[in-house]
Amino acid sequence: MEKLNKGLKVIHELSAVTMWPASVTPMAAQSDGSHGFWPEGFSSGAVDAGIKYSNRKDLMVITADRACSAAAVFTTNLCCAAPVLLSREHLQLSSFSVRALVCNSGNANAATGVKGMDDARAMAEAVARELAIKPEEVLVASTGVIGQLLPMDKVQSGIVSLPSSLQHDSVIDTAGAIMTTDTFPKFFTLEVRLSRGSIRLSGLGKGSGMICPNMATMLAFFTTDATIAPSLLQEALRYANCSSFNAITVDGDTSTNDMAAILASGTGPEIEADSEDYRLFCEALEALMIFLAKLIVIDGEGATKLVEVTVVGAADDRDAELAARTIAQSSLVKTAIHGEDANWGRVVASAGRSGAQFNQDDLELCFDNLVVLKPGFKADFSEEAASEIMAKSSYAITLRLGSGPGQARIWTCDLSKEYVDINGSYRS
Amino acid sequence: MEKLNKGLKVIHELSAVTMWPASVTPMAAQSDGSHGFWPEGFSSGAVDAGIKYSNRKDLMVITADRACSAAAVFTTNLCCAAPVLLSREHLQLSSFSVRALVCNSGNANAATGVKGMDDARAMAEAVARELAIKPEEVLVASTGVIGQLLPMDKVQSGIVSLPSSLQHDSVIDTAGAIMTTDTFPKFFTLEVRLSRGSIRLSGLGKGSGMICPNMATMLAFFTTDATIAPSLLQEALRYANCSSFNAITVDGDTSTNDMAAILASGTGPEIEADSEDYRLFCEALEALMIFLAKLIVIDGEGATKLVEVTVVGAADDRDAELAARTIAQSSLVKTAIHGEDANWGRVVASAGRSGAQFNQDDLELCFDNLVVLKPGFKADFSEEAASEIMAKSSYAITLRLGSGPGQARIWTCDLSKEYVDINGSYRS
Repeated sequence: MEKLNKGLKVIHELSAVTMWPASVTPMAAQSDGSHGFWPEGFSSGAVDAGIKYSNRKDLMVITADRACSAAAVFTTNLCCAAPVLLSREHLQLSSFSVRALVCNSGNANAATGVKGMDDARAMAEAVARELAIKPEEVLVASTGVIGQLLPMDKVQSGIVSLPSSLQHDSVIDTAGAIMTTDTFPKFFTLEVRLSRGSIRLSGLGKGSGMICPNMATMLAFFTTDATIAPSLLQEALRYANCSSFNAITVDGDTSTNDMAAILASGTGPEIEADSEDYRLFCEALEALMIFLAKLIVIDGEGATKLVEVTVVGAADDRDAELAARTIAQSSLVKTAIHGEDANWGRVVASAGRSGAQFNQDDLELCFDNLVVLKPGFKADFSEEAASEIMAKSSYAITLRLGSGPGQARIWTCDLSKEYVDINGSYRS
Repeated sequence: MEKLNKGLKVIHELSAVTMWPASVTPMAAQSDGSHGFWPEGFSSGAVDAGIKYSNRKDLMVITADRACSAAAVFTTNLCCAAPVLLSREHLQLSSFSVRALVCNSGNANAATGVKGMDDARAMAEAVARELAIKPEEVLVASTGVIGQLLPMDKVQSGIVSLPSSLQHDSVIDTAGAIMTTDTFPKFFTLEVRLSRGSIRLSGLGKGSGMICPNMATMLAFFTTDATIAPSLLQEALRYANCSSFNAITVDGDTSTNDMAAILASGTGPEIEADSEDYRLFCEALEALMIFLAKLIVIDGEGATKLVEVTVVGAADDRDAELAARTIAQSSLVKTAIHGEDANWGRVVASAGRSGAQFNQDDLELCFDNLVVLKPGFKADFSEEAASEIMAKSSYAITLRLGSGPGQARIWTCDLSKEYVDINGSYRS
């Protein structure tokens, strides 16, 4: 309850400062559960299967009343987990038509070899049996420690009791069940006004550590009642993913289990290719994904600050991303952010080693709107004003390279002693 | 004195477990100063100029009785410091013939624009004036905080008093004067038996934070009495640098001021190209540079452990280096090393995201000689035996990719809460 209240507070605050698209109405959940419900056609449930944690839910399922259009992006880590391999396979086998998604926390089922693949398959089969659907209509996801086999007896018993936990308004419970070192559940719903009526778009996610998604993401699941073809849904997901989950970092480690999936039930208005409605849908999905991505950074392991690193004026977007990512992942920048020290030298030093091309005399740097560095390394700013900005829980660092039109934006957090504490003993 | 004794203890211990080449006799300094002296033809001195620290030496000079062959490698960071730019220029202007090297700690003279370049030039000119040599015969190096102008009045007064501090056996003092967050001075001397007699090879270095040299190094200065042409000396330095300073990481941040330089006074036997003596010289220089590189990792900011990460069986050496570097720099691997947790899943997950190509089912992993993972993700090892290894202050992690003949070796340290403490407030 404490975690939930903390989460709701963070979510409400972030929503309040978010520039939502004009066609969107944000619908944050309340502690009484209102608005914590799914779009038409979806239910979810969660149980305490005792996989690793005690006295908390660690196994959840999202189900759809009918076959949904499905799309997903996955980690690019070569050591990808068994559920990632299986979910990829199921999307192909089912022709991107999905009825359920099952996910456990406490164990990643990664680096588990043939047995791990059998276990992931058994999870899908058990869910299919309980819901009277086909195994290939089930997506499987796992998160937790790497390199240990799932306690399949506990998982199987948990799955048997999942159907009786199914509810339309249990989103909060469901989001809580996929937490690992997260300190609060992350979920949000948007109502999106389209030309033929409104649709609803819900998302939940988890992050915390091993967060540096690459062409994919940590775990995040989305549902919508829109009617949309799988190929178009996949295109929208890929598009929105680039500027959201692929643009955050907690510790620079790309996970073995990253996965973002979206299910569209098709009970709401239809969205066609190249339409204005498709544009609005993409815009809303991107906004929701950026929102969840920020929540993940805010709740990064040991994190106390959310910092938006923007690089503009790069030779091209690739160079801008190199520089932004290097700054956002620098341990020295992240400890300075933690120490609230306006150590701008570390920011330019990170850009200098990033591989991006520029002339060091052209650099210009701002913390929020405070110019701390002008071209020619003229640093003449009020330390007091800088300290005021760095004391905030969220601010922006913007670096101008003076080399061209390229730009990129990455969200990062600080590096604290708690990160070391959490990760020195996570496995045991 | 406490720092010195700690340093001598660490240096003696590391030397005792080092496999020195057959032609080499290690000559560690003693606390009474014996062996802490330079090869024939060199002196050095250090003073307390009050640049940043109080009550400690922070400015030093190494001088040669006659013009030396000189070679150097520098940081590839685009935001390289003024002294890096100036030393590059001076090597060209003097045709690689150098008489002195001046270095300060407490201020990096980086990101300081035109004024910084003027200051570096003024340092060389002041040293040249005191020693009655040409400014271009002086190399300049700086280390410390980035983005602040040098207090040139203090630097100038310090340089005036440097000559009276010159001694043949003041290596310990000199190594101490370039420390920043280092906890002990780092220096070592080798005697190398060549076909026409012995030469001496001395080196001192500093590291601590912002350590991830790329095609260059942190600060390290070498002297020898060998007679060797500058071009050959440069070749030897580049060769030895690849497997030593370029193969270590503390925090993944490549500094703006990295520089390794070597001066050869030419009073000892001559070393010719393609000779057996040249091979022995390269071997000895590499051994000395690896020794200093390891000292730098041992003394990394907040570090408590030295871990050798080796990747073998990669498709090629580039892939092996990608994997080894990614493992060695992973915050999750480094915190697990700190927590003495045999979390092998993080090692394979790092390799998986590194960009190196392999099949995850082929992976094999050892901690020292303990096999913790066999192909097919068969992890069946004694946690007790693994814990024993991880409790040591130094051990090896070896990952076999099973893809080809490529291999690489990187030294790293753990990530501790002290690192966060040190870097949260370094500038102020």
